[in-house]
Amino acid sequence: MSNESPLIAALRLCVPADQVLTEPGDCWAYGYDNSRQQALPDAVVFATDAEQVQQVVRLCNEHGTPLVARGRGTGTTGATVPVGGGVVLSFERMDRVLEVDPDNRLMVVEPGVTNQAVQDAAGQHGFFWPPDPTSAAVCTVGGNLAYNSAGPRAVKYGTPRENTLGLRAVTGDGHMLRTGVHTTKGVVGYDLTRLIIGSEGTLAIITEATLKLTPLPDAKRTLQAVYRNMSDAARAVAALMAQPVTPCALEFMDRGAIEMIRAYAEADLPVDAGALLMIEVDGAADYVDTAAEAVARVARVDGALSVEVARSDEAVRALWATRKALSPALRNVAPKKINEDVVVPVSHIPDLIEGLQTLGKRHGITIVNFGHAGNGNIHVNLLVDPEDPQQMQAAEQCLDEVFALVLKLRGSLSGEHGIGLVKRAFVDREIEPETLDLMRRIKAQFDPAGILNPGKGFPDPA
Amino acid sequence: MSNESPLIAALRLCVPADQVLTEPGDCWAYGYDNSRQQALPDAVVFATDAEQVQQVVRLCNEHGTPLVARGRGTGTTGATVPVGGGVVLSFERMDRVLEVDPDNRLMVVEPGVTNQAVQDAAGQHGFFWPPDPTSAAVCTVGGNLAYNSAGPRAVKYGTPRENTLGLRAVTGDGHMLRTGVHTTKGVVGYDLTRLIIGSEGTLAIITEATLKLTPLPDAKRTLQAVYRNMSDAARAVAALMAQPVTPCALEFMDRGAIEMIRAYAEADLPVDAGALLMIEVDGAADYVDTAAEAVARVARVDGALSVEVARSDEAVRALWATRKALSPALRNVAPKKINEDVVVPVSHIPDLIEGLQTLGKRHGITIVNFGHAGNGNIHVNLLVDPEDPQQMQAAEQCLDEVFALVLKLRGSLSGEHGIGLVKRAFVDREIEPETLDLMRRIKAQFDPAGILNPGKGFPDPA
Repeated sequence: MSNESPLIAALRLCVPADQVLTEPGDCWAYGYDNSRQQALPDAVVFATDAEQVQQVVRLCNEHGTPLVARGRGTGTTGATVPVGGGVVLSFERMDRVLEVDPDNRLMVVEPGVTNQAVQDAAGQHGFFWPPDPTSAAVCTVGGNLAYNSAGPRAVKYGTPRENTLGLRAVTGDGHMLRTGVHTTKGVVGYDLTRLIIGSEGTLAIITEATLKLTPLPDAKRTLQAVYRNMSDAARAVAALMAQPVTPCALEFMDRGAIEMIRAYAEADLPVDAGALLMIEVDGAADYVDTAAEAVARVARVDGALSVEVARSDEAVRALWATRKALSPALRNVAPKKINEDVVVPVSHIPDLIEGLQTLGKRHGITIVNFGHAGNGNIHVNLLVDPEDPQQMQAAEQCLDEVFALVLKLRGSLSGEHGIGLVKRAFVDREIEPETLDLMRRIKAQFDPAGILNPGKGFPDPA
Repeated sequence: MSNESPLIAALRLCVPADQVLTEPGDCWAYGYDNSRQQALPDAVVFATDAEQVQQVVRLCNEHGTPLVARGRGTGTTGATVPVGGGVVLSFERMDRVLEVDPDNRLMVVEPGVTNQAVQDAAGQHGFFWPPDPTSAAVCTVGGNLAYNSAGPRAVKYGTPRENTLGLRAVTGDGHMLRTGVHTTKGVVGYDLTRLIIGSEGTLAIITEATLKLTPLPDAKRTLQAVYRNMSDAARAVAALMAQPVTPCALEFMDRGAIEMIRAYAEADLPVDAGALLMIEVDGAADYVDTAAEAVARVARVDGALSVEVARSDEAVRALWATRKALSPALRNVAPKKINEDVVVPVSHIPDLIEGLQTLGKRHGITIVNFGHAGNGNIHVNLLVDPEDPQQMQAAEQCLDEVFALVLKLRGSLSGEHGIGLVKRAFVDREIEPETLDLMRRIKAQFDPAGILNPGKGFPDPA
């Protein structure tokens, strides 16, 4: 203990002994995320209430020590990796559902609660919370809010920004903020709720969230539509988004992804399948079949090889299993693949996919694409082997051109994964220098000493 | 001209002569809004493009002169009243629809375009933009964004914050910002779009908005439900919000409002009607009748006197005419009534209405309430005569207690009208001093000289 820094000694006075880790062997497990980057923090603190969070923030602020908030480490961008050392503040012991208020369609939770636990608690009252990242079973709501993470349902129900009413959060200088309202309307003061959502823990540490709930639909139908090529599928996507029955999921896979599935599962797909859509519609039990038929009609554009409604629960499970197996399957083929989550306007998806194929060929890299077509959110997978320096150099150049293409198509570098460490060098391609400077100055108002997740989300200043 | 200030002389060099007014008689008409407050600006400038806006902002910034952006002056809070003189920047000549992109569900407009013109342009492609303030025919999108103004449809489709993808705006120090994305997902950088929306022209002057469009539903049904009292009606509201068919309008009137209608129109309402709901559902043509029946069943809680679906277009028009006549009718009775737009969680509406009746009695003031029940957004009308100083004093005390009640019920001071001048003294009841201070420091990053709409939205610093 005598060797410990004054900060760690002070932390021990704030929280009980079993809420602090300082042994490197213990801390190491809290220094990684799903980006496969890792760094060693000086300490890990497990807060159990907002007052402890505030005390830890204040101590770090006094000592000028980096502080990284952490849910379950499922992020893919390195945003929770403590590259500057300092303290990792884990929320795994702040995981309570504080209130479910179905009459007011809201729920109050601590940030360490998993997305699944939120769905379970809401479901008991006939509601759900729309954001549904693939990692929903284990990822935390705090993380969902930090990255504005969504998932397939966002096409109909929106992202965390559209589904959060208010927050409690501690700023970098240790003030306890209360933002937002308990209602679906409110215009008193600036919208700090949405400013903090998606800020990757760089503005304030969320200690409580008031989530907006949505009634569970009575029923759901799942359709699979197969197309000759991506261009035909994209026309179907635009047509689907222009008619009144908005799907609650509109996922796609390109030819490369379909071939991946063929190799790993028995998929009953036409041999000339060049693109596949999974479409889900939800609504009242006595209407959902009509809705599915309407959607099927619209999906049958020229170039559609088959459009079918899944006939059984088992068939639906099989379809989703296929979709969800894709990412692990890709990881199996290329364990260290590069996974980007760019977003382009829906009508530009064919140009993007075509451009990606050209870039892949030029740089000798296999690129497989799938994602949330209704939002134009495409997961671009470069199947590379990081042990091969030549290939990695090609990948770097290729990625550079991928981002240039995305921006040319009026897109954005990230739809839901965020920036973290891995994309920060590219942010200034999308955001102009003066705007970046404004964002940095806004951060300085929340976090004057710059202790909150330093080195994330933004490029280094020029 | 020789008497003109250096600023006005400089403004004349930026824009053609017919785009500047300086005669008090001409300027006076640009110094009021629907709050019945008025002040004289030194000049009115009619910008026709973003570059002119930028030049005007830069000049005002150099001269430390207040600048107030103005749409059509339909706001109710004095937010566009130039209380500190200076320049009113009118957007009435920047009213173009720049792009309608139905495939990508978006539309790009200048801020001076009216809400109605947006609906017309979107409607040609089978879409609409959800925000629908009562003044939609004349109010501008720039104003809708400045106040985050919504209307009845917000209960299903959200406010401008949920329906705007991105902005172009000029900060107080004259930088041209580009915020947001052309897609429905995006997490690169902080969410400046939502920060600027609802900021009442205090952070930046919007020069262009990318609006998110929604497909027009095929059909709509309108229901009228009458209840014994507000408490029964509120139970119906909570039940309606808890089932899967979210109404696209859920408006209510209390007993006072119903009596007002009886006096001004032939309304076929039971004599013992203590509360009325207007419920609208929309959707596919072959489903909307089923949806209306489902909603009617849920609305028939204990205490329901009648729940009926309007049988003809004429009947629907009559219902809406009644609802829309209410505000003018009230103004007829009490031309200078005080109209607040508080918001409380839906389940607290009965407590609010009951509390308001108690406060009205205690202070000898008739209070009539109606509004957007689905959002808990209640328009509270104090029917007072400003010529009567005793009554006005009572009203002031009453209003004070109204706001205290609203906050006690976890509500907010404004759902959609905003703060402007009229509510600024109350803002620090809702927002804590440290948070207000943070908001002021954020403003200083956008507008270091404090020229953008000074004296609005916030209380004077202590």
